[in-house]
Amino acid sequence: MDPSASAEAIERVSQEIVRMGGQPHLSKGKFRTVIGAVGDEIALDQSHLTSLDGVEKVVPIMKPYKLASREFHEDDTVVEVGGGSVPKVLIGGKHAVCIAGPCTIENRPMLDIISRHVRDGGATILRGGAFKPRTSPYSFQGHGEEALKWHREAGDSLGMPICSEVMDTRQVELVERYTDMFQIGARNMQNFDLLREVGKTRKPVLLKRGLAATVKDWLLSAEYVLSQGNRGVVLCERGIKTFEDSIRYSLDITSIPVARQLTHLPIIVDPSHAAGKRDYVPALALAGLAAGAHGIIVEVHHRPAEAQCDGPQALLPETFKELMGQLRLIATVTKKEFAEIGELANS
Amino acid sequence: MDPSASAEAIERVSQEIVRMGGQPHLSKGKFRTVIGAVGDEIALDQSHLTSLDGVEKVVPIMKPYKLASREFHEDDTVVEVGGGSVPKVLIGGKHAVCIAGPCTIENRPMLDIISRHVRDGGATILRGGAFKPRTSPYSFQGHGEEALKWHREAGDSLGMPICSEVMDTRQVELVERYTDMFQIGARNMQNFDLLREVGKTRKPVLLKRGLAATVKDWLLSAEYVLSQGNRGVVLCERGIKTFEDSIRYSLDITSIPVARQLTHLPIIVDPSHAAGKRDYVPALALAGLAAGAHGIIVEVHHRPAEAQCDGPQALLPETFKELMGQLRLIATVTKKEFAEIGELANS
Amino acid sequence: MDPSASAEAIERVSQEIVRMGGQPHLSKGKFRTVIGAVGDEIALDQSHLTSLDGVEKVVPIMKPYKLASREFHEDDTVVEVGGGSVPKVLIGGKHAVCIAGPCTIENRPMLDIISRHVRDGGATILRGGAFKPRTSPYSFQGHGEEALKWHREAGDSLGMPICSEVMDTRQVELVERYTDMFQIGARNMQNFDLLREVGKTRKPVLLKRGLAATVKDWLLSAEYVLSQGNRGVVLCERGIKTFEDSIRYSLDITSIPVARQLTHLPIIVDPSHAAGKRDYVPALALAGLAAGAHGIIVEVHHRPAEAQCDGPQALLPETFKELMGQLRLIATVTKKEFAEIGELANS
Amino acid sequence: MDPSASAEAIERVSQEIVRMGGQPHLSKGKFRTVIGAVGDEIALDQSHLTSLDGVEKVVPIMKPYKLASREFHEDDTVVEVGGGSVPKVLIGGKHAVCIAGPCTIENRPMLDIISRHVRDGGATILRGGAFKPRTSPYSFQGHGEEALKWHREAGDSLGMPICSEVMDTRQVELVERYTDMFQIGARNMQNFDLLREVGKTRKPVLLKRGLAATVKDWLLSAEYVLSQGNRGVVLCERGIKTFEDSIRYSLDITSIPVARQLTHLPIIVDPSHAAGKRDYVPALALAGLAAGAHGIIVEVHHRPAEAQCDGPQALLPETFKELMGQLRLIATVTKKEFAEIGELANS
Repeated sequence: MDPSASAEAIERVSQEIVRMGGQPHLSKGKFRTVIGAVGDEIALDQSHLTSLDGVEKVVPIMKPYKLASREFHEDDTVVEVGGGSVPKVLIGGKHAVCIAGPCTIENRPMLDIISRHVRDGGATILRGGAFKPRTSPYSFQGHGEEALKWHREAGDSLGMPICSEVMDTRQVELVERYTDMFQIGARNMQNFDLLREVGKTRKPVLLKRGLAATVKDWLLSAEYVLSQGNRGVVLCERGIKTFEDSIRYSLDITSIPVARQLTHLPIIVDPSHAAGKRDYVPALALAGLAAGAHGIIVEVHHRPAEAQCDGPQALLPETFKELMGQLRLIATVTKKEFAEIGELANS
Repeated sequence: MDPSASAEAIERVSQEIVRMGGQPHLSKGKFRTVIGAVGDEIALDQSHLTSLDGVEKVVPIMKPYKLASREFHEDDTVVEVGGGSVPKVLIGGKHAVCIAGPCTIENRPMLDIISRHVRDGGATILRGGAFKPRTSPYSFQGHGEEALKWHREAGDSLGMPICSEVMDTRQVELVERYTDMFQIGARNMQNFDLLREVGKTRKPVLLKRGLAATVKDWLLSAEYVLSQGNRGVVLCERGIKTFEDSIRYSLDITSIPVARQLTHLPIIVDPSHAAGKRDYVPALALAGLAAGAHGIIVEVHHRPAEAQCDGPQALLPETFKELMGQLRLIATVTKKEFAEIGELANS
Repeated sequence: MDPSASAEAIERVSQEIVRMGGQPHLSKGKFRTVIGAVGDEIALDQSHLTSLDGVEKVVPIMKPYKLASREFHEDDTVVEVGGGSVPKVLIGGKHAVCIAGPCTIENRPMLDIISRHVRDGGATILRGGAFKPRTSPYSFQGHGEEALKWHREAGDSLGMPICSEVMDTRQVELVERYTDMFQIGARNMQNFDLLREVGKTRKPVLLKRGLAATVKDWLLSAEYVLSQGNRGVVLCERGIKTFEDSIRYSLDITSIPVARQLTHLPIIVDPSHAAGKRDYVPALALAGLAAGAHGIIVEVHHRPAEAQCDGPQALLPETFKELMGQLRLIATVTKKEFAEIGELANS
Repeated sequence: MDPSASAEAIERVSQEIVRMGGQPHLSKGKFRTVIGAVGDEIALDQSHLTSLDGVEKVVPIMKPYKLASREFHEDDTVVEVGGGSVPKVLIGGKHAVCIAGPCTIENRPMLDIISRHVRDGGATILRGGAFKPRTSPYSFQGHGEEALKWHREAGDSLGMPICSEVMDTRQVELVERYTDMFQIGARNMQNFDLLREVGKTRKPVLLKRGLAATVKDWLLSAEYVLSQGNRGVVLCERGIKTFEDSIRYSLDITSIPVARQLTHLPIIVDPSHAAGKRDYVPALALAGLAAGAHGIIVEVHHRPAEAQCDGPQALLPETFKELMGQLRLIATVTKKEFAEIGELANS
């Protein structure tokens, strides 16, 4: 309460807490009275309490998310991707994953070449964009359903589950028909209708962190998906906006131990979009694993100068393979393991 | 070019610039060669050039947006909101606007009371949320179409155009039937499908700035709307994410003179969502006008402690009225004018 | 306390609070126990409490600064600058101030020309740098004591108090001999030894906000000066580091109403260093006043292209004069007044 | 140049470039003329060019630092710490280092206990604060010279070089008498006088990155030290200010590959001050090494609940030892090696 709050104001706030189903606990100091409100934090509406006369600030102690919290579910969640026409890949707990492929799917032959490269290098899930979120309306926006078909065929022929981005609620049904895993991009992390729609499906969701989202905001977005009954959420750290201008985004490595403590959901890193430049990708990927992440999602292209999108950040196949070797070493330090594609069994 | 780039690499880059329809201009220094590329910046794909051997960095000189730029359209755009059942309100050039109303439309009687208060206080457009973007899935999400009906009726009965948020491409048609102006929220500023859909309508769009968006990103989002043929875009600065934790968002007042120089589109400020606390709203509103904004959008509630959403930031009707008086004085300093509701003529 | 904290851990924390002279208040909820600690927040060491077993987090409710807080001193402080050889200028309460001059003092004739321009335009305190903090060791670093002499002479001859930056504890005595007001730059806001040294003098201090400092950090730095017995602190908002790259720093206008509520100290804005470009300076200055600031500090140069430092942000004398006219109008809206130089009486 | 710049303005800018010793190269496009300026970037004053009529912006292509740049000095610098009464420790190239000890030196017995713990755990340099920069004037400020004596004695008796912070130009001589390596704290990274003073000594300098400093700003601060003739600069990444509020500072892991590319100077990480909480320290330390850092500086305390300063972030001796084991494994992946204290020879 404000130092100048009257006894009536204090009494009024206490009564409101009772009315909302909570119990007030008063601590009177020399300068100030603090009222502890014990009860369900959803019922104890913070915004309402802040509005009452004499209230200086309301400090929530409980976390605003439930299903995503480690208090609700103590053990690490292991998410299954694939099954059916392709083997199942596990993410979470001791299972580390490498999702790789081109930024955008440009055509069938190029996808085939890159798919084989990433499979050889050690990836077990094949990424690729059919619908691309682009900052400028004049940039290439993706090949849509045709690209999804090529993507499905490539995954099936190599025995790899696939992961594809969905940008619009109207595309969810279409993308669901083809993909094994939805990707929600950073700019859609708080597109709440989209989160609800993928939450209604039973396909796992790779949820990228928004560029201005705190870890708490991110877990609340995961909660949107989980609250619809879809428990297959994998978090993906991909960098936040900061003042630093020598790199595209600052990969927030600190979010990994923080999220690992707050949530049971798996978390991976995307070094490609953070770096924006291939030279920096390996260092960020290795740092992510060392900090405790459950793997990476990375862009690979054998001819980056001809890529229609984000060529400068794509790894060359040989660099990718070498990186995977280093990642396997670091995974042993943090008690995780990357599956070999040959070991995966079809379900 | 990199200081160690070979003569072949320099030649190769020059040829690529020619191939893309541009003209290369070489400047050889003691340590480094700089290649100027003159031509259409859409054809001269920055990402491709960055990928070439020996290229250290690519520095774009041209702006990546066109229709939104002041170079394309020198004079201030004046956007018309309303017409038909309600008078037309102008925003832009010398026309300042005050859009006011409750955060969310809770019920018909409450909307009627608040509408009359804001009309009396000097607002000429009535805001109100039917669909609410909420960080938590457990928070109140708005009354949907029913709220839109109440909103339309309130606007018609008071002679005020209305402004309502649209969050999902599937809602665009519904919201368009009722509203005079779409609002696109900060979290949807880069929901590119949604931008395209409202761009296909002919109703004006209030485009809030994303929490991590640069002024350039924001103008590129405006470009998405403009490029579909809808020229009625009004920008709205509502604060960005910074490290400062004593206020919800930092209203970026510097974006106003910057945007005024770069674009012909009108720009207003939203002091309510930046402040998150009613005490700070008047100072931010006055600062916005003084910096050159074309008006404000502000939340008002006669019983904020009972509001279902964002009560702590809603102004009381009497504070709102007093603020409007001060805003009119500041508008004269920056050569703008707020219309009186009585002067507006039905079209 | 952590949800899994034992009864012993809770008891141990309660005992520690008693040992430190506080009183513990327990609130037991379904999932968690919260312990309120009432007492002197300096004695109740937050860092120590955080270290105890079972403690999840410690949330301070009291403010960590005292002398700077409005709770300690309810009325606005009015700081006096000058006296002796020059008139006294007041800053704070209803007294708005304009401090103007060149960025750096280049030579005597140039200072004389600019001094007369700013006096004519309406400034009452003359700024000018003798010691310049420069990001690069290769940039011009100021003319030192010689510049201080020119500055003193110019101030005396025009009847204007002067304000000059001090960067190093070893310079405090020297600068004190010449100046009427110390300036502490943004990069030195947490140079704690320097704060203590100027705190030991009785000359007022213009304390610029650090580029990464919260309002709370800033007030703690003011507390360093105040706690040495020097009560003449004027805060100066000059922009913070954000991700926005179209302007040098983002002038944090929201800090003004926040600081006005938390502290009794006067606060002014520096639009020149935030903008980095003269075109944006007037908008930021007007916004600062409208938000409730007690004035501005601004750079003026009659030949900016020849300035040794920060020419691009210096206002031309005629723009400065015009701006002052607009600032006087806005000051009346926020119930402040700029003194005319002719009205000031020598003390 | 601005699209509306006249032919005279373009000519004038070209002449100015010539006057400053450079060569102008014109590229005329459809909308805009770009003038390349080839020459010494110190002579070609950017600020002056920006001031000229018709100039839209000046984009520097050359780096503003020289001695710190990898272009100037291609191979990794290896910095030597110690010699004389203690063995020499190497930092840089393939040499990784662990600097450990208490936050502040509280008394002789406690320092002895902690020193032995960190030596046993694998540290080769002993840290400890005698002068502490504290945000609040009411916090403990360090034991000064007495603490330096204890520190020196502890280092000598265990055969470990010591590292101690210097905050004020007036302390440089005193601290130099005792320490083997100066530490410059984040809040003093742009205390230019202090940088110059330690630059005049021949003791190596651990230069922490400022909370709002870009990598470029940081290298310019290193340049201050280097330009005085002191070549022993070790950079230390310790987190930057961002909007994320679940951790004290965001360790900017991306700065490591960026700095490794731009400079030959060694770079280490400080996970303790970034995390602010012991649980997160190991993850950040491992990530730093994996990203390519040359080691860590970390706080250790055997009784953190009794520490006078920053207890919550201090590692327990057993956690520290375990962490060192993991760091040695990761160092092999990034081709570095931590020395064993027994292998170090006195010089």
